[in-house]
Amino acid sequence: MSVESNKPKLEVCLSPALLHLFDVKNSIVVIIDVLRATSTICTALHNGAAKVIPVASVEECVNIGKQLNAITAGERDGQIAAGLEHGNSPFEYSRDFIEGKVLVLTTTNGTKLLHMATDAIQIVTGSFPNISAVCDYLVAEGKNVILGCAAWKDRVNMEDTLFAGAVVSRIKEHFAVDCDSAIGAENLYAAAKDDLFEFMKGASHFQRLARFGLEEDIKYCLTPDGANVLPLFKNGELIAG
Amino acid sequence: MSVESNKPKLEVCLSPALLHLFDVKNSIVVIIDVLRATSTICTALHNGAAKVIPVASVEECVNIGKQLNAITAGERDGQIAAGLEHGNSPFEYSRDFIEGKVLVLTTTNGTKLLHMATDAIQIVTGSFPNISAVCDYLVAEGKNVILGCAAWKDRVNMEDTLFAGAVVSRIKEHFAVDCDSAIGAENLYAAAKDDLFEFMKGASHFQRLARFGLEEDIKYCLTPDGANVLPLFKNGELIAG
Repeated sequence: MSVESNKPKLEVCLSPALLHLFDVKNSIVVIIDVLRATSTICTALHNGAAKVIPVASVEECVNIGKQLNAITAGERDGQIAAGLEHGNSPFEYSRDFIEGKVLVLTTTNGTKLLHMATDAIQIVTGSFPNISAVCDYLVAEGKNVILGCAAWKDRVNMEDTLFAGAVVSRIKEHFAVDCDSAIGAENLYAAAKDDLFEFMKGASHFQRLARFGLEEDIKYCLTPDGANVLPLFKNGELIAG
Repeated sequence: MSVESNKPKLEVCLSPALLHLFDVKNSIVVIIDVLRATSTICTALHNGAAKVIPVASVEECVNIGKQLNAITAGERDGQIAAGLEHGNSPFEYSRDFIEGKVLVLTTTNGTKLLHMATDAIQIVTGSFPNISAVCDYLVAEGKNVILGCAAWKDRVNMEDTLFAGAVVSRIKEHFAVDCDSAIGAENLYAAAKDDLFEFMKGASHFQRLARFGLEEDIKYCLTPDGANVLPLFKNGELIAG
């Protein structure tokens, strides 16, 4: 995988604390928060949500929810945050419930990274449930790509790295990959792909979520193409591309 | 690999830009700069250097070298830096040359991380040529450990991650490993270990060094126990432990 200057670059940023090392302005940035923000975002849009508005704080979530008469959602420490109506589980956003509605979602890690990357050519969000939509888009655009892992309070995490690696393995021939994080993530995905759920049992976030009985959430979030839509960030909102 | 609170923690910090996320003060920190600073440091000490003084700037290197009548060494962009006498290759530091002498060494990535970690219980340096000495020490001490990758201008690199993974794979049963970077590094090492040199051919730093004809350096730096001594950082100097 050497530099091929005629191809756009494909890089992986393993933590928001490393984003300043990348040329965000000249890249498409994929925000990755597999457990569970970006899995829930594509699920809501796939099931017909009009849009998803990602916000940083619970207060902002409440205020925008009132203004727009929207559904408010978000968790802190694994519980629905005080003042909000719904949580972070993709299973809460069935078509019956979400179709035609606006969802205001507050998450800590994913939203933080998204707001750090607003200089990008375009921001999209990715997770296993929409991996094909993301990969098709990136190949079709043919621009530099940064796969941005939301991580966990800036600490590198397994699930976001695995998704980045899955994307690298799918689309690398269309890009120049001169980034050790990308090569590492791809190798990690290769080691894990036969049973991602089993592999994830060793990871720190799995333990956190499993304590809340969320193993079905995790399985869904690791399964390709269950909600295969492309969330595009435009004017502060995520809409189906 | 779940948390076992009766064991000390073993964590991997993939870049100096992430070090603030770790509890440096209550840990032993292993500085890892495989290509080539920490490989050269253990080689010089193994071959009888009295001590190695790591400094950040070429100017400091020149000044301390004069004061101590020491050997000065360091590279910038793959060339011996102006004003210094020697480079970063471990092959420059044979016993004939270095025994009994003081080496003042300036490197960018490794030295930077080392000086960021001076609050640690103890700093040591590690690379494949002294992996057994490092592992034996960490197990014997039984304290929290941060394997600190020097990386490349804060960007995560392959060789330092692989060394961290090799250490995790050797000593993990003595520690609680609740760190996705550690688990990821270990898996990466498992994928690479049958032929580290071949695996490294895909990595960004390999390309940089190979352009300078340094493939023999790389092979040496990836080979276990060629200079199996423990460099301990005390009062600004690295001495053989």
